Amino acid sequence: MTEHIIDPSILDAENARREADLRRDYETLGERLDRRGIAVDAIKEKVAAFSVAVPSWGVGTGGTRFARFPGLGEPRDIFDKIEDCAVIAQLTQATRTVSLHIPWDKADPNRLKQAASRFNLGFDAMNSNTFSDTKGQLKSYKFGSLSAADKATRDQAIEHNLECIEIGKTIGSKALTVWIGDGSNFPGQTNFTTQFSHYLDSMKAIYAALPDDWRIYTEHKMYEPAFYSTVVQDWGTNYIIATELGEKAFCLVDLGHHAPNVNIEMIVARLAQFGKLGGFHFNDSKYGDDDLDAGAIDPFRLFLVFNELVDAEGRYKDFHPAHMLDQSHNVTDPIESLMLSAADVQRAYAQALLVDRKALKAAQEANDALAATQQLRTAFRTDVEPILALARLEQGGAIDPLATYRAAGYRQKVAEIRPAVESGGGGIV
Amino acid sequence: MTEHIIDPSILDAENARREADLRRDYETLGERLDRRGIAVDAIKEKVAAFSVAVPSWGVGTGGTRFARFPGLGEPRDIFDKIEDCAVIAQLTQATRTVSLHIPWDKADPNRLKQAASRFNLGFDAMNSNTFSDTKGQLKSYKFGSLSAADKATRDQAIEHNLECIEIGKTIGSKALTVWIGDGSNFPGQTNFTTQFSHYLDSMKAIYAALPDDWRIYTEHKMYEPAFYSTVVQDWGTNYIIATELGEKAFCLVDLGHHAPNVNIEMIVARLAQFGKLGGFHFNDSKYGDDDLDAGAIDPFRLFLVFNELVDAEGRYKDFHPAHMLDQSHNVTDPIESLMLSAADVQRAYAQALLVDRKALKAAQEANDALAATQQLRTAFRTDVEPILALARLEQGGAIDPLATYRAAGYRQKVAEIRPAVESGGGGIV
Amino acid sequence: MTEHIIDPSILDAENARREADLRRDYETLGERLDRRGIAVDAIKEKVAAFSVAVPSWGVGTGGTRFARFPGLGEPRDIFDKIEDCAVIAQLTQATRTVSLHIPWDKADPNRLKQAASRFNLGFDAMNSNTFSDTKGQLKSYKFGSLSAADKATRDQAIEHNLECIEIGKTIGSKALTVWIGDGSNFPGQTNFTTQFSHYLDSMKAIYAALPDDWRIYTEHKMYEPAFYSTVVQDWGTNYIIATELGEKAFCLVDLGHHAPNVNIEMIVARLAQFGKLGGFHFNDSKYGDDDLDAGAIDPFRLFLVFNELVDAEGRYKDFHPAHMLDQSHNVTDPIESLMLSAADVQRAYAQALLVDRKALKAAQEANDALAATQQLRTAFRTDVEPILALARLEQGGAIDPLATYRAAGYRQKVAEIRPAVESGGGGIV
Amino acid sequence: MTEHIIDPSILDAENARREADLRRDYETLGERLDRRGIAVDAIKEKVAAFSVAVPSWGVGTGGTRFARFPGLGEPRDIFDKIEDCAVIAQLTQATRTVSLHIPWDKADPNRLKQAASRFNLGFDAMNSNTFSDTKGQLKSYKFGSLSAADKATRDQAIEHNLECIEIGKTIGSKALTVWIGDGSNFPGQTNFTTQFSHYLDSMKAIYAALPDDWRIYTEHKMYEPAFYSTVVQDWGTNYIIATELGEKAFCLVDLGHHAPNVNIEMIVARLAQFGKLGGFHFNDSKYGDDDLDAGAIDPFRLFLVFNELVDAEGRYKDFHPAHMLDQSHNVTDPIESLMLSAADVQRAYAQALLVDRKALKAAQEANDALAATQQLRTAFRTDVEPILALARLEQGGAIDPLATYRAAGYRQKVAEIRPAVESGGGGIV
Repeated sequence: MTEHIIDPSILDAENARREADLRRDYETLGERLDRRGIAVDAIKEKVAAFSVAVPSWGVGTGGTRFARFPGLGEPRDIFDKIEDCAVIAQLTQATRTVSLHIPWDKADPNRLKQAASRFNLGFDAMNSNTFSDTKGQLKSYKFGSLSAADKATRDQAIEHNLECIEIGKTIGSKALTVWIGDGSNFPGQTNFTTQFSHYLDSMKAIYAALPDDWRIYTEHKMYEPAFYSTVVQDWGTNYIIATELGEKAFCLVDLGHHAPNVNIEMIVARLAQFGKLGGFHFNDSKYGDDDLDAGAIDPFRLFLVFNELVDAEGRYKDFHPAHMLDQSHNVTDPIESLMLSAADVQRAYAQALLVDRKALKAAQEANDALAATQQLRTAFRTDVEPILALARLEQGGAIDPLATYRAAGYRQKVAEIRPAVESGGGGIV
Repeated sequence: MTEHIIDPSILDAENARREADLRRDYETLGERLDRRGIAVDAIKEKVAAFSVAVPSWGVGTGGTRFARFPGLGEPRDIFDKIEDCAVIAQLTQATRTVSLHIPWDKADPNRLKQAASRFNLGFDAMNSNTFSDTKGQLKSYKFGSLSAADKATRDQAIEHNLECIEIGKTIGSKALTVWIGDGSNFPGQTNFTTQFSHYLDSMKAIYAALPDDWRIYTEHKMYEPAFYSTVVQDWGTNYIIATELGEKAFCLVDLGHHAPNVNIEMIVARLAQFGKLGGFHFNDSKYGDDDLDAGAIDPFRLFLVFNELVDAEGRYKDFHPAHMLDQSHNVTDPIESLMLSAADVQRAYAQALLVDRKALKAAQEANDALAATQQLRTAFRTDVEPILALARLEQGGAIDPLATYRAAGYRQKVAEIRPAVESGGGGIV
Repeated sequence: MTEHIIDPSILDAENARREADLRRDYETLGERLDRRGIAVDAIKEKVAAFSVAVPSWGVGTGGTRFARFPGLGEPRDIFDKIEDCAVIAQLTQATRTVSLHIPWDKADPNRLKQAASRFNLGFDAMNSNTFSDTKGQLKSYKFGSLSAADKATRDQAIEHNLECIEIGKTIGSKALTVWIGDGSNFPGQTNFTTQFSHYLDSMKAIYAALPDDWRIYTEHKMYEPAFYSTVVQDWGTNYIIATELGEKAFCLVDLGHHAPNVNIEMIVARLAQFGKLGGFHFNDSKYGDDDLDAGAIDPFRLFLVFNELVDAEGRYKDFHPAHMLDQSHNVTDPIESLMLSAADVQRAYAQALLVDRKALKAAQEANDALAATQQLRTAFRTDVEPILALARLEQGGAIDPLATYRAAGYRQKVAEIRPAVESGGGGIV
Repeated sequence: MTEHIIDPSILDAENARREADLRRDYETLGERLDRRGIAVDAIKEKVAAFSVAVPSWGVGTGGTRFARFPGLGEPRDIFDKIEDCAVIAQLTQATRTVSLHIPWDKADPNRLKQAASRFNLGFDAMNSNTFSDTKGQLKSYKFGSLSAADKATRDQAIEHNLECIEIGKTIGSKALTVWIGDGSNFPGQTNFTTQFSHYLDSMKAIYAALPDDWRIYTEHKMYEPAFYSTVVQDWGTNYIIATELGEKAFCLVDLGHHAPNVNIEMIVARLAQFGKLGGFHFNDSKYGDDDLDAGAIDPFRLFLVFNELVDAEGRYKDFHPAHMLDQSHNVTDPIESLMLSAADVQRAYAQALLVDRKALKAAQEANDALAATQQLRTAFRTDVEPILALARLEQGGAIDPLATYRAAGYRQKVAEIRPAVESGGGGIV
C-alpha cells in the first residue's frame, strides 16, 4: 500500500471545499467543448494517464554562480529528496517517477528501491555527472570529460557512466541521460574535430554496455559551463551522435538549451520525423539556460511543443518520448514550483489534445494561414484547469495542490527536522 | 587573350607609385615571419591560387523592404554585370568565376559563355530562384515552392531547377545551389513534417537530374522571408537533406544565416568532419541576415572560419569547398565592396595559413588554453596586406584595387552609358 | 449617420446564429469571475471603450526584400484603404481611428476628412516618411534624413515633417510619429555623436512647429534598414530625445524593435514611471522586426505589456498612451489579420483587467514569488472571448468578425473593382 | 622603493633575448606609420601612460553554477591577491591599481595600504556586494537588496555601501561601484515601478554620503542572477539613475552585460555625449555574461569601443573614464589571463590612436562609407605589438610577459606555500 505523506484528512478537507465549483466548471467546460465536437472525458482520461518525471536534484534550492540562498528544510540526502518527490506525486498525481543523479544520489540501490516503492514511485532515467569533480576523484574534469584530450580522463568518465548503468539496472531504470559540460573558453583551446572524435569514441564504449531494453539520451546545450564552444552544442550535433551510436540512442531536448529565437517546436518535429526524439527536460527561460519553471515565461511555446507531440502520436508507432522537469528553483519552495510545473506541462498537453487536427490540416492544405493558426489559438485559449483538477481529484490528488500543500504545513514540519543550510556566496564573479 | 576593362596604363601607373613601399613591407614582413619559421613566399603562392566567386546580382545596388537607393551606372543586364565582374577580377585577381541567378540572368547560354570568356571568367554554381514570382509564371510561390502544399506548385519549382541545370551544363557550371524561402509566418500555418517531406521529395527529383560530375548545395537560413518557421532552418536540417539525397549533395554555409551567438566555425568543422561541407556564401552581419561586406563587422570570426578550413585541408583528401561572396551593397559602390571583400576573404585565409599548427596541437594536448589561443591571435594580428598586394601585382592586378578603380573612373564612365534608375520605396513597412 | 460597408442583414444573420451560445458562455464566465470577486460587466464596459488605431498601409499586402505577393483586391489609394479600415471598424468595433502615412496617403485633406467621417472614423497620429525616396524629391535619403551629414538633406526632411503636421491639423490629428531609418552599415561610416547632434537639432526644429495640443512620438528600432548602427536604436536614446525636446515629446514602443530577449514590459514600466510613454505599435515577432500579427507568437508577452498598462492606469493621472497596430501581412488577407489583431490586443487588455492587484501586491510584499505569478497566470488563462464578443455585439459589431467577413464576401467584391497587382521580385538578395 | 616579486635577473635575461628583434620591429613599424603621417613614439608615450585596474577577485580561479575547478596556488586572502596583482603590474606595467570587493577583501585598511604601497600599487574603485549573503548577516538578499520589498533589508544594503565608502576613504580610493543582482525570476514577482523607486531611494541615501571628490558608478546588466527581470537592466535605466542622483553619478559599461547583437560602442558614444560615461569593466563574451578574457572573442569590437574613447578624448574636456578588467578565469592561470588582457586593452587603445581622424571625418562628410570604414580597418590591422612591448620594456616590464612569467616559475612557487583547494561541484543544475 502506498504511504501518504500529506495527511489524507487535510487533503480531503481541502478538496471538499472546492469540489462543487470544480464539478460545475467541468460541466460547463464540457458543454463548450461538446459544441466543438470534443468529449471532455476523453481528454481527462489522457491527461490522467500523463506523467512527468521529477529530478531528485530539483527538490533542493538552486543557485547561480553569484550566490545560492537555501530555503527552509532543504533535503539532506536522497531519502529526504524521495519524500519530497512523494509529496509532489501525492498532490499532483502527475509525477510517478524520480530521476537520479550520480554521484549526488549514490546510496545502496536496494534502499533506494525500497524508499521509492513506499510511495509507489518508480525511477526514470539515470543521470551521470562528469561536469564537476567529486572528492577523491583521480582525474579532474576541468578540461573536459568524455571528450578530454587526456585518455585517462576519458576512461574515468566512461567508467562513471558504466557505473550509472549498473545502479540503474538494480533499481529498475531503463535509460541513461548523458549531459556533459565539455567545450572550450577560447578559440583554439581545443580542436573541434579531435574533441568530437574523442567524444564519439567514449560514447560508443558506453553504448556497448547499454542493456538491450535501455535507451541512451544525449542532451545538447548551446553554452555554459563552456563559453566559447560546447561539444554537443545543438540538435545537429546531437542527431549525428544518435545516428552514429545506433538504434537505442536518442536526442534529449531541454527547452532552455538553444540559441536565442530558435524555433524549438520545429526541432521536435524534425527529430520525431527521423526517429531520434528521445525526450524532454522541461523548463522555461527568457535569456539563456535560465532553468525557470516550465511555462512561466512563454506558455504558448510549451503548448506548441505539445502540439508537435500530439501530431507525432498520431503519426508514428511506438512513439513515447521521456518527460522530465529540469528546473532551478532559486526563489521559490522547490516542491511548490515542481507541483505547478507538472500541472503546466499537463496543461499544455491537454490544450494540444483540443486542437481540431482535421480542420487544421484542411486549412494548411488550403494555404489558409489565419484559419490554421486560429485552430491552435482556440485550443490554447481554452482554460483546461477543470480537466486537470478533476483528473487529480479522481486519482486521489488535490484539486488545488498549492493551497493544499500550504495548508498541510509540510515545509515547516521538515524544517524542524532538517537543519538550516547557510547561504553561500561563491566569491565567483 | 583576356580583355582588360581598366586601362592597363592607369593600372601600371597606380602600381608604380606603390611598388617600392610594397616590396619593402613584404621584405620586412618576410623577415618577421621567418623568425616564426614561416616562408612568406609559400604563403603568397597559396594566396595567389585562391579565388572566390562573385554573384552576378552582387554588382547591383541592394535594398531593404523599406527602400532601395540605386547608385550611378547600375548594370542593365547580365552582360553589364559580367563587365563589372571583370573589373573586379582584373584588379583583385581573386575572383575568377561568376555565379548566375536564374531567371534574373537568363540569356542565350552561348552569348553568356562568350561574354565571360572575353575576360577569362568562368561560371560558378547556378542559383535557382523560387522565392519570388516571375512575370507570366503559372503558380505563385506565395505559400512555398519546393515544399508547397500544392503539388503543381512543387512541380513547377522542380522544373525550374531542372532548367537551371540545363543552362549550367551549357555554360560549364558544375553545381546547383538551392535556397528557398519556404516556411510559415504563423504557428500552425504549415505542418512541419508534411512540409519537409514535400521538400525532400522535390529535392530528390532534382537530384536525380544532376550530372555525375556536379554537386548540389542546399543552403540553410534561420528566418526571412518566412518569420515563424523556415523549412531549411539550420545546419541540422541541412545535414539531414544532404544525407538523404546522396553523395553529390552538400551543405552550403552562409555566414549570415544563423541564430544569434551561434558558433559558426564549429558548424564548419562538423560538416567537414562528416563529409558534407559544400561551401560558403561569405558576408558579415551584426543583427540578422544583414548581408554586410565580408569581414566588416567581425573579422576575427572570418579568420576562425578559415582556421577550420586550413585545418580541414590538412586532414581530409579531396577537400575543396566552394567560395562565393553573397552580400547586399546598399550604401557603397558594389564593385568597390566586392573588391575589398574578396581581399578580406583572402586575408582571412592568409592569416589562417600562418597558424603554427604543430604548436597549436601541442598546446591543445597540454590543456594550455592560453598558449593555444595565442597561436591564433598571433596569426590573426599579422598584417598580411603586403602578401595580398604582391600576389595581386604579380598576377597583373592592382596593389591598391580601390584607389586604382577610382583613379580609372569606371563608375562615371558606365554612368554615361547606363541610364539612371529611380529610388524605390516599397510602400512596405 | 455611419455608413455600413458590410450588409447589416448578413451581419445580423451571422450574429443570430451565435448569440445564444455567446450569452450562455458569458453567463458561466460571469459566474466563475464572480467567485474571484470580479464583475464581468465592468470588464466588458472597459473593453468596449478600448480602441486601437489601424495604419492605412496595413490594409495592403506587405512583403520582404525578397518578394511581395499581393492578394486580391489590393487597395488602389487612400480612399480604398479607408473603406477597408471601415470594414474592420464595423465588424470589430475596436478600431475607431486610422493613421496616415505621408506621402503615401497624400490627398486633399478635406476629401480625406469626408471619406473618414462617412464611416465615423477619426484620424490617429500622422506618420512622416524619410526612410525612402519619393519621385521628384530633390535630395535622396540614401545616407540619412534628419541626421544626414548634408544640411540640405536634413532641411528637406524637416520640411516634410512640418508638412505632415499641416495636413494633420486639417484632418484633426493630434500627434506626429517620427520613425527614421537613419544609421550606418559600416563601422566608421558615420560619427555617432555628430549624427545624433544633427538628429536632435532637426527634431527641435520640428518640435518648435508642433501645436500646443499635439504630441510628438519618436520610435526607436534596433536595426533595419541600417545594419551596423541606428540613430534611435533603443529606448535609452529615445528617452534622451523625449527629455531633450520637451513635455510634448514621448517615446513610442514598437513591440518588434528590440534586441533579442529584451524585457519589453519593463521598458514600458520605466517610460511610464518617468512620464515619457507615448504609445505603442502593436505586432509580434520571433526573430527581428518580423511585423507578425499581434499576439501571434507570444500572447503572454502581450498580456504582460497590458499588465503594466493597467498598473499604470491606477498609478498615474492623465495616462493615455496611443495604441496602434503596425504589422506586415504577407500571407493573409490584411483585413482579416487586422480584425483578429485588434481583438487580440483587446483580449490582452481584458485579461490584464482581471488581475487581482491587491492580492498581487500582497504576494509581492511577502516575497511570495509563486503566489504573485499565479495571479498573472490565472488572469491570462481566463478565456475572455465571451466578453470581447458581447462587447462587439452590443456596439453593432460581429460576434465572430472573421466568419462574418468571409460570409459577406467583401474581398471577392473589391477584387472585381480593384485591378490585380503583379507579384514583385525585388531582385534584391 | 618598489618591491619586485619576479626576480629582476630573470626579467632581464628574458628581455635580453628579445630586445634586438623588438627594436628592429619597432623601427620598421615606425617607418610604415611614418608613411601614414603617424609618429610611432607619440603613440608609444600614450600607450605607456595607459593603465587598467585589476579586480582583486580576478586573480582567483572563477567558476560557473555547475562547478569550480581551482588551480595551483590559489590566493588565500587579499594580501596574497595583492602580491598576484603586483606580478601583473611588474611584468605589464599597465595595471597600476587594484579594485577591492567588500566584504571579500575586508581587512585592516592600514595593512591594505601598506601591502599595496610595497609594490607601488594604488586602489581603484571600491565594489560593494549585496548580491550574496555573508555569514552572520541579519537580512538575506535572496529577494533583493537596495530594491528589496523589505525596508530593513534595504537599510542593511545601504549601510554596507556606506561602509565601503569609509574603507575606501582610508585607503585612497575615489569611487564606489554599485552592481546589484536585484530583479525577479517570475512575471509578477515584483512590481517594476515600486522596485525601482526603492532602488532610487536607497541610492540617494548612498549618494548623500559620497565625498565631494568621489564618483559613484552604477553598472547595468541584462540578466543573471535574476532571470526574468533585472532592476538596472540596461543603459537606459542606468542613465536615468545617473541623472536622478546627480553630477557625481556615472554609468559603468561592462562589455558583457548587454542583449545579443547590441551595438555597445554606440552606447559608449551616447553616454559620453551626455556626460554620464563613468568607465568600463573590460572582458569579452560570446553568449551571455561569459566573462571571458578581453579581446578573446571579438577583438574588433574592443577596438571600436576605444575608437569612441579616442574620439571622445578629442571632443570633451575632463574626460577620464575608469578602466577595469572584470573577467572570470575558469581554465587559465588568472595571472596569465590578466596580463594578456591588460595588453589587449592597451592594444585596442593603441590601434584606435592610429586612426586618421581627419580623413575619417572627411569620408563621413562625403558619405563615402567604404573610405571611412577603411580608415578603421587600416588602424585595426596594424600590428602594434612592438609599440606595446617597447613601452613595457622602457618602464621596467617584460617584452613578453607570458614567457617571462612562466620562466620565473611564480605559480609553482606560490603553490608550495598556498594550500591546494578542492574542486567544488555546486550540486546546482
